[in-house]
This record gives sequence, C-alpha cells and structure tokens, in this order.
Amino acid sequence: MEKRSVKEILSPRGIAVVGVSPSSPGGYASRVTVALKEAGFPCIYPINPKYKETFGLTCYPSVKDVPEPVDHVVVAVPAKAALSLLDDCIEKGVKSVHFWSAGFGETGSTEGAELQKEMLKRAGKAGIRLFGPNAGGIFVPRNRFVWSNAAPRIPGPIAFLSQSGGHSGYLPIIGASRGLFFSSIVSYGNAIDVNECDLLEYVTDDPDTEIIGVYIEGVREGRRFFDLLKKATRKKPVVICKGGFTEAGKRATFGHTASLTSSETVFNTLCKQARAIQVEDMDELRDVLVVLRFVRPIPKDYGVVVIGQGGGASVWASDEIEKAGLNLPPLSVETQAELKKFLPEAGGIFSNPVDNNLLFSAKGIAATGQVLGKVPEINMFVFHLGFHPSSRWGGPAVPSDKEALKPIIDALLETREKSSKPVLIALSRPLDLEGMKHFLTVQEAFVDASLPVFYSLNQAAKAMSRVVKWSRLL
Amino acid sequence: MEKRSVKEILSPRGIAVVGVSPSSPGGYASRVTVALKEAGFPCIYPINPKYKETFGLTCYPSVKDVPEPVDHVVVAVPAKAALSLLDDCIEKGVKSVHFWSAGFGETGSTEGAELQKEMLKRAGKAGIRLFGPNAGGIFVPRNRFVWSNAAPRIPGPIAFLSQSGGHSGYLPIIGASRGLFFSSIVSYGNAIDVNECDLLEYVTDDPDTEIIGVYIEGVREGRRFFDLLKKATRKKPVVICKGGFTEAGKRATFGHTASLTSSETVFNTLCKQARAIQVEDMDELRDVLVVLRFVRPIPKDYGVVVIGQGGGASVWASDEIEKAGLNLPPLSVETQAELKKFLPEAGGIFSNPVDNNLLFSAKGIAATGQVLGKVPEINMFVFHLGFHPSSRWGGPAVPSDKEALKPIIDALLETREKSSKPVLIALSRPLDLEGMKHFLTVQEAFVDASLPVFYSLNQAAKAMSRVVKWSRLL
Repeated sequence: MEKRSVKEILSPRGIAVVGVSPSSPGGYASRVTVALKEAGFPCIYPINPKYKETFGLTCYPSVKDVPEPVDHVVVAVPAKAALSLLDDCIEKGVKSVHFWSAGFGETGSTEGAELQKEMLKRAGKAGIRLFGPNAGGIFVPRNRFVWSNAAPRIPGPIAFLSQSGGHSGYLPIIGASRGLFFSSIVSYGNAIDVNECDLLEYVTDDPDTEIIGVYIEGVREGRRFFDLLKKATRKKPVVICKGGFTEAGKRATFGHTASLTSSETVFNTLCKQARAIQVEDMDELRDVLVVLRFVRPIPKDYGVVVIGQGGGASVWASDEIEKAGLNLPPLSVETQAELKKFLPEAGGIFSNPVDNNLLFSAKGIAATGQVLGKVPEINMFVFHLGFHPSSRWGGPAVPSDKEALKPIIDALLETREKSSKPVLIALSRPLDLEGMKHFLTVQEAFVDASLPVFYSLNQAAKAMSRVVKWSRLL
Repeated sequence: MEKRSVKEILSPRGIAVVGVSPSSPGGYASRVTVALKEAGFPCIYPINPKYKETFGLTCYPSVKDVPEPVDHVVVAVPAKAALSLLDDCIEKGVKSVHFWSAGFGETGSTEGAELQKEMLKRAGKAGIRLFGPNAGGIFVPRNRFVWSNAAPRIPGPIAFLSQSGGHSGYLPIIGASRGLFFSSIVSYGNAIDVNECDLLEYVTDDPDTEIIGVYIEGVREGRRFFDLLKKATRKKPVVICKGGFTEAGKRATFGHTASLTSSETVFNTLCKQARAIQVEDMDELRDVLVVLRFVRPIPKDYGVVVIGQGGGASVWASDEIEKAGLNLPPLSVETQAELKKFLPEAGGIFSNPVDNNLLFSAKGIAATGQVLGKVPEINMFVFHLGFHPSSRWGGPAVPSDKEALKPIIDALLETREKSSKPVLIALSRPLDLEGMKHFLTVQEAFVDASLPVFYSLNQAAKAMSRVVKWSRLL
C-alpha cells in the first residue's frame, strides 16, 4: 500500500488528543487542546474516560468512541499504553498518530526498541503514519493545526523541520519579533516512521514555503536525504543546523532522539555538495533565516560599510566582521572628505567603520548613505544604531517612540533604494526593564519596515557571510 | 623632576570641569559635574565664563579664577582651545588634566600630532600628568571620583584599564547586574602621557584591587608593558582584551585612539609568556571577570556536568561545551541508575548532560548534586535552569519570586559546599517585557548569593576553559 503523504496528514479534519486532563492544564495534551481551540480548529476531540467535558469540549472515553471522523491523534500518555492506543486508532481508521510521549528507543533499552518496532509494524499494516515518538509537535498555522499557544499563529513563508521539540517550540516564539513566520514546523523526534526525508520532500513541493530550515541530529536514510536536499536547494534555500558532533553531543543525541550521528566531515561535505547553507547553532539559523527573508538584494560580494557610534565598539566590530568573513574596504581620502562636509570630524572615525554621533539622525544617515552608496567596493550597509545596553547610559541614542523613529527608518529605506544595496540593522540587547521597553519599540519599528534586525554586528556579519558565499556558488 | 604617580592623581581634592553648560545637560562636562555632585565629591568647580552658577554650584570664568586648590581638571572643549587651557592649568598649579575632547592625533593630521607634542612638552615642564586626549574618563568610586551617573558607585575588587571610553563606560553598567564592581576604571584614549604601563603599575600595587581587566588597542612601550604584566600576574590575575587585529580593526584603532597595533602572534605570545588570560572580546572579558570573582574553588581540571532541561538545548550545549575546551565525562551505568532512583526516566537524558524536568526543583537539584558530586571526573557543575526566552513559553521554569527561589539557591549552595566543586549558572536572556522581569528577579537572587551567572552555556564554558587553563599553568 502506498504510504499516505505528509501533505495529506498535515491537513487533518478531526484531531483527537489523548491524555487531556482539566486537572493539569499545563500538561502537553491539555495545552494542545486549548491551543487548537483558540486557533479555531473546528473538530477537536479530547480523550479521557474520567471526564464528559473538558476545556469546553465534549470529552470521549477512547478514540474509538468519537462519533465523527478522526484523521490525526495526538498521544501524551506513558509508553506502556502506546500499543493499545494504537489499536484503538487502527480500529477508528485514523490517518496519523503523533506520539509526544518519550520513554521509547531513546532510553537505550531493548524494550524501548522492540516497542517501536511493533508500533511501526501495526501502524504500517493499517496505513497509519507515525510522528515521533518523543516528538514535540506539528505547527501549521494556515491549517489552524497547532500545539501551543506560545507562538503567534501568523502564517509565513518559512518551513522548519526539527528533530528537537524544544527548538521547534522556541523558533516561532523567538523569531516572531524579528519578522519570522512559518508555513509549517514539524518536530519529528525519534522519527521511526515520518522522518527528515519525508518532511524535506513535502516542504520542497509546498507552494507556501519559500525558505527551509532544518535542525537535525542524525540522518536515517543518508543517500535519500542528500538526494532530496539537492532537489530542495534547486527550488529554495535550505539552512541546516546539525546537533551532536562532539562525543558528548553524540551521547546526548542518542539519549535525546536515539539518533546515531555521522562524522562531521562527511556531513559537512554532503551539505556543501548539496548547496545547503550550514550553520553552527540555532542562533545562527535564526540569523540566516532573517537574511534570507529580509535582505534585498543579496549582495554579490563581501564588502560592508559599518556605520554607527562608539569607538571601542567600532574597533571591535571591525575585527569581528573581518573574522566572520566579510570585509570592510577602506574609504578613500576623497570619500572621507565628502563625509566630513556634514559629519563633525572630532571624535569621529571615517575610514570604515564610520563612527559619528550624528549617525543617529535621519539627516546624517541619509547623507552618509548617499555618499557611501556610490563606493563600488561597498556591497552592503550595516547600521549599529547605538543601542545602549541599559537605559542608565546617558549618551546619544535612537529615539524610543515610533513617531520619532519614522524619519530614521525612511532614511534607511531611502539608502537601500537609491544604492540598490541592502541595509542591515544591529541592535544590542538590553539589560534592564527600561532598556527592554525601548528596545522592543525600536525593534518593532524596524521589523515592521521589513528591515533585517540582528542582535550584534558579529551575528549580522556571520549570517551575511554565509549567505553571500552560498549565493556566489549558485 | 620625578613624575607624579597615578596613585596621587587618582585622589584629587579639587576638580574643575571645563565646558559645563546648563543649556546642554547631556554634554560630557555637564554630566561629569552632576555625577561628581551626586557622588558627594566635596570640591567641584564648573568652568564657564557665561555663568555664575550651574547645577547648584558656583561657576568660574577660568581655572585660574577658582579660589580653592584644584588638583585635577576635566576638559571637554574643542582641540583648538587645548593649549591656552593647559596654560591656565599650569598657572593654577594643577596636578593632572584629562582631555576628553577628541580631534587630536587620532585624526591622522600633522596638526593633531604637533598639538599633542606641544601639550606634552608644556605639561611635562610643569609636572602635570595628562590623561587622553580623546579619553572617556576616570572612575574611582571609593574616592567619589566619577564621570557618569550610569554606573553604580559601589566599590569592588576589580580594576579595569581601557583604551576605549565606550568600553570603560559600559563595563560597570553591564557588570553590576552580575556582581562586578570596581576599585578603579580608567579610560586612557590616545595616551600621550599616562598610558597602559603607568596604569598597570598602579593597579598592581593597589591593595583594593584583586583582579585586573585590560582593554588595549596598541601598546606604546612594548618591553615595559610586558615586564609590568609579568609582575602584575605574579600578584593578581590579569585579563586582556586586545582590539584591532584585522586590517579593518587596525584602521579603526588608528582613527579611534591613534594606536598602531602590533602583530597578533607577537602580542598573543607575550601575553601567554606573561601568564595573562587573553580573551577575544568584551563579552568574554566580562565572563572571565565573573569566573575570577565568583567561581570558588577554581577547578583543577576541565570535567563538567551540565544539568538542566530541554533535549535540543542539551545536545547543542554538549557540542558547544566541548568546542569551548571543557569536557563532559560520560556517566557510568551505576551513576545513571542512582539518578534514575529519583528522576523520572521518560523524556530525560542521563549520560551527561543530565536533562530532566525535575531539575527545576530544590529537591531534584540537591539529590542530583549529591550523586554527581562524588564522581571524580566531574570538576564543576553548570546548571542551565530552563530559562525560557519568552514568558509565552508554557513549559516548566524556575519560579519568579524570591521566596520560591530561595530553596533552589540553597540547594545549589549545598551542592557546592558538599562537593567542593564550583556551581555555575547559565540563564538565557529574555526577549519580552514579562520575560525580562522574571529574568531580572532570578538573576538578582543568584548574584546576591554570590553565584556566577552567565548568559549561555557556551559563554560559561569558554570563560571557565580559559581560567582553568591559566590556573593549571601557575
């Protein structure tokens, strides 16, 4: 029998949730139920023999007892109940079951491995696709198919496949403030049936997905994965973060998702051949997603001009940016002289980085952008807008209300438009409450203007360097 | 004539501030005046011929007109006024002048260099020591000698010498929340007279200084500096961050403080020979200061156990920690079995990292600490206490009120005491206002208990790795 496609099972009509309990509203099954309800998913069936109703929904003793069709079942009960639950699902004729529960193959026990085998056998016979076990959840906001209320339910063009439930849960929460929204996020855990290959195939063909992110601990079908990866990167950019390279990381991946990780060199080579963009950690993955989503155009070369305020910060930034693989072309005496026409000379640096107190003003930004936009060695602008780590810092800073920020943002957009070179923003993260209020206002204003925001110059440079390198290979 | 010592000039009786203006309260001279006043410095003399009084203090037309003795003068007026101002200071018989103003040697112009030479000549003849020009300021809270209200005026055991004014200003603000307080912070800018050597000599002998931090762009007297550094490290740990290694960084250091930087290899070798702890950036400098200040005892070897919650985070942490130079010794089957007696097996990782939902509870922490404290390969504990990046995340977390945190902190201190192994805390930085409130409460509680707090596992590991390496060489 042909296996059901991922596409089919990500658009379920009815979802049953096993393990819901009004007495533990923080439990996984309860959270899934509430999240589905708040998302407006139409047919939710909580399962618990002890209750007739829970969270305002009719509760059923077992999956078999639901009077309407059930396509997908979310299971959050201990591993020992897995087989009988699966039998109920087979009887009900469901299409897919997601085992959130842990305590299977990843414990390292023979029982865990045997249990997984038996589940796979029974499900396979019945044409049921399995997610997990030990998998965080499925998040397809356009289908109102969600598992948590924490992430905004705004659909976007990014798909994220994650072997880790934690990463799959954090990314849409953390990413939202920088404008990252998702077509689908699937955490696949131990991946005894639906795995990274099935999911990669799906998101490659998904018309709502323009960018693909992957967090992977171990590849199960190496050959198939790399063939699919090559196919995917021909259609859209794929960013991959691999966990579990060191000895300790390998031990942890086994305990986490029972994955056996491959050698770092082999994996890296295959990613390179497949033209995927490899990153070192989840922070970098987010940064590269921000570049792919908001940096327009992708520059053809590595030249960057850094514009902002703070001498020590500028020296450090220069070192960091060159180490990250971009370069800061020196500015000619003529260009420097042009800048000095409107930027005060004392206390400034003009050689690239360009460092000046006036660079917090719309006028200063626009005039600087106009001069530097003409320098052919400069392929992109990075503004570090003097965001101070604490509201206690008394020096110059960007304004903290949206009205006053508007001309600054207009000057940045004008710079991008007139120069046809992308503009990136680096904001330092705050360390106190007042600073956080200021930071959130400023960040929102930039992100609303579709500007790529990074939390340090180093982060911006590393992400840009990876993307420029990748785009030059295409 | 013997030059006046740094010690003498850091304890001035009277301070005159040139360039104060009530119409620009955000200007440097005004901020210095207000800061000195709020710190309770007794004899402050604002200088401005336009006013009779400013910020509640009598204002004088020139330094010469102050009727009381003036030891130190802070100058924040344009470079072209420098010489006549210096002449006033000579006439008045002051001991030291700090030129905050920029526009001197760092502009690269012949005039700038000539001006500096002349200043040095005149000051030298009169026995006046010069700070800067283009230097951020002097901060000696125990003497009420400060330049900004931003940093808390709590004296502490750390000295920081910084060629960058920005870094010298940020560090005490940013460091305070992690328990870093200072004996003295001096930003020395272009360093035409008082330089890193004079300052290093001073802090080496200063009985109130136990730890020395240095941010340096260029060394003026290489031989003397490394001799002094060797002498310093025999008495107290010295952490050095060097800016301006790459081509762009060198350009920026010249524009910033007119420094000519040396080769990276030479500088690194000399630091190693002198047994200084070298770090790559200011973030790392702060982290190493936290280690030196709060990690007790400094472990003899690199073995770490990572304890916390979140599978993906644990896998990533393992990789990061091993890359940073620490190692995670695997736990024996026996040790794992002991842990499984009280930690639920499903969803947990027991191999090191130890990952379990119960590890947010005081009971779970204490019991885990007791088992792992006996493992000889483990030299230190790192707790990542499941700090979530957003309050929207619904999973388990550390409590957000001090009362509920107390037993957790007691369990951590008990673990340290019973095992004689240090305990480090990694907290993720928040991304929203609610998260920030939670984070600040938790951070304060840990820091009040003298626990070393880091903002990521990777940061904690990198800093520990550097300090263990250094301490093994001693």
